[in-house]
Amino acid sequence: MTQRSRTRARHSLPLSRVYRLLEPGPVVLLTTAHRGRTNVMTMSWHTMLEFEPPLVGCVVSNRNYSFAALKSAKECVINVPTARLAETVVKCGNVSGRAKDKFAAFGLTALPAAQVEAPLIAECYANLECRVVDTRLVAKYNFFVLEVCKAWIDPAVRAPRTIHHRGRGEFMVAGRTIRLKSRMM
Amino acid sequence: MTQRSRTRARHSLPLSRVYRLLEPGPVVLLTTAHRGRTNVMTMSWHTMLEFEPPLVGCVVSNRNYSFAALKSAKECVINVPTARLAETVVKCGNVSGRAKDKFAAFGLTALPAAQVEAPLIAECYANLECRVVDTRLVAKYNFFVLEVCKAWIDPAVRAPRTIHHRGRGEFMVAGRTIRLKSRMM
Repeated sequence: MTQRSRTRARHSLPLSRVYRLLEPGPVVLLTTAHRGRTNVMTMSWHTMLEFEPPLVGCVVSNRNYSFAALKSAKECVINVPTARLAETVVKCGNVSGRAKDKFAAFGLTALPAAQVEAPLIAECYANLECRVVDTRLVAKYNFFVLEVCKAWIDPAVRAPRTIHHRGRGEFMVAGRTIRLKSRMM
Repeated sequence: MTQRSRTRARHSLPLSRVYRLLEPGPVVLLTTAHRGRTNVMTMSWHTMLEFEPPLVGCVVSNRNYSFAALKSAKECVINVPTARLAETVVKCGNVSGRAKDKFAAFGLTALPAAQVEAPLIAECYANLECRVVDTRLVAKYNFFVLEVCKAWIDPAVRAPRTIHHRGRGEFMVAGRTIRLKSRMM
């Protein structure tokens, strides 16, 4: 897949549908930009907080290189990978951005975002541009509240094989889909 | 499975392993007890906040009957179901505890917890007894911070077929497991 085709495939996603990407708990890649440097980190500790505008809460440890970038720039992108990117996702989690340009090292393609400085990762099927809107729980829990201001999706991916961390290098890959008569959003 | 066998199968789980149950993002059943009444609600908006003692952040909407119970009693149990309980999970999400005793209506078995008044659900393979430890984000986001004080698991369930909400009655069932050389916890 060329970068051109990846770029063309990216459609804008209505903000009201963002929760459907994060609610099932996928491992995501968080990108930041700060003082002219971009970075990627692997993240599993996140939750939806509100449907629309979509609010997301997430933990970015103050031991992570991304912490300072997120705290200062107050912007990031949440990129959702599928299983074919699993090895890269783990590599991104194994090293610090202090030591390495992970985009170059792991062959990830940075695309410009529409509303934030942090880049989209072209290899991910969905990208959520976010702004930090509440830092009250950062000091105690490293917990940031983000508002998703722009969302992108590859419409060709219908049943994404997202990956879900079960600890210590064990990941569950999204399986079959079932449909039930739910009144839940 | 009789209630007796369910009770016998339940082992204590070290608190350091709790994150491995919630990090992959399963739909869970939250139980509460308040003024002599127990209740169950379906919940997907939760995240780990700390490994040990395990802290969990979760959204319980103030439109839910469980909200008042959680706010007053400051205790609950997070119960993790698998796919064979999927229809019951959806039923629990479709009605309010105001109108119905969901344990009786949906054939769920309440077992006494060790440290909290809220009951364990016997049909779930894991149960986390929790206390509310931070309510700073409740007013704005209905976001509660819980500390898991006791955890139970059915050790016979090795690769749990947890269910993961993708919105509007669509659920992803946990698929295959892959193992990668990760330094992540």
